[in-house]
Amino acid sequence: MDLKDKKVALFLADGFEEVEALTVVDILRRAGITCQMVSIKNNDTSVISSHNVRITADVSIGSICFDDYDMLVLPGGMPGTKNLASCSTLTDGLRSFYANGKEIAAICAAPTILAGLGFLRGVRATCYPGMESQMDGAILTHEAAVVSGNIITGHGVGCAIPFALKIVEHYLGASEADKISAGIVYK
Amino acid sequence: MDLKDKKVALFLADGFEEVEALTVVDILRRAGITCQMVSIKNNDTSVISSHNVRITADVSIGSICFDDYDMLVLPGGMPGTKNLASCSTLTDGLRSFYANGKEIAAICAAPTILAGLGFLRGVRATCYPGMESQMDGAILTHEAAVVSGNIITGHGVGCAIPFALKIVEHYLGASEADKISAGIVYK
Repeated sequence: MDLKDKKVALFLADGFEEVEALTVVDILRRAGITCQMVSIKNNDTSVISSHNVRITADVSIGSICFDDYDMLVLPGGMPGTKNLASCSTLTDGLRSFYANGKEIAAICAAPTILAGLGFLRGVRATCYPGMESQMDGAILTHEAAVVSGNIITGHGVGCAIPFALKIVEHYLGASEADKISAGIVYK
Repeated sequence: MDLKDKKVALFLADGFEEVEALTVVDILRRAGITCQMVSIKNNDTSVISSHNVRITADVSIGSICFDDYDMLVLPGGMPGTKNLASCSTLTDGLRSFYANGKEIAAICAAPTILAGLGFLRGVRATCYPGMESQMDGAILTHEAAVVSGNIITGHGVGCAIPFALKIVEHYLGASEADKISAGIVYK
């Protein structure tokens, strides 16, 4: 399989941090990796961000099959993160991915969802500053983005680019990530 | 007037660079500055980004009065930049802002629109690398973001955060911009 055939699902709940979400979509699509935006509303693809930007997701969670994806990505933002955490279809999917050693990524407040599901015990991870008490068992770092096994975490919206680039690097290697970084004139 | 009462219009055409646009919306709204997304379609607020994300603008250009705003912002992206450049309602508004010494900001490919209108003669400015030949008369820099009088330019999507922070700093000062930068854990 060409690594560009990897398929990533990025989950959107009302109150998602728009730049954290769309930076991943933007950079993965630049890299040629399929990235679908999945609304966690069963029959509604319209979601509103934490700063009141309405966007239309590609699909809604009721119409996807988790097995079709290689990675699940959770943006932060409030109340988006709480809304993601309370979606049982999503948490069931996350548990299945974790059990099968498939990739999961989360940024800002969203790594606390992974911690709450017990995925971060002994795992190097980062999260939004001030939320460390909700990162049970994680080996906390303050890096912009961290890859630890199959789990990738990001620090906050100001680190959305390095977080997205880590996903590209994970699948396509450092030189492809460097190409994207140069193309977006990231400094 | 409280500087937070400043009102910014950010223009969206099909093919806009989503992260360049929404980083400005996100950061200005965090700072408490009003930022309205304006679709350049007369009676349609639905626009699609350069990486196929459909968003709903707040208003359409046919329903705004340019005099109500203090700053006009142009995101880049293709074909978004070309679409903005060929919208006469927008270019008329830009000319009026320029003639009245009001603020204009543009990032990535979009500073070439300002150059095409003759606004950058003798002005320090930046743009997406490779487009320098379309920056007639500008004193080119390769900074992430540049303020020169009433014109603010940004280098590319990788510099969307410093570009947006320059707008905050321009209106609210460096300490407010620093607070936002810390809040988003920008590194």
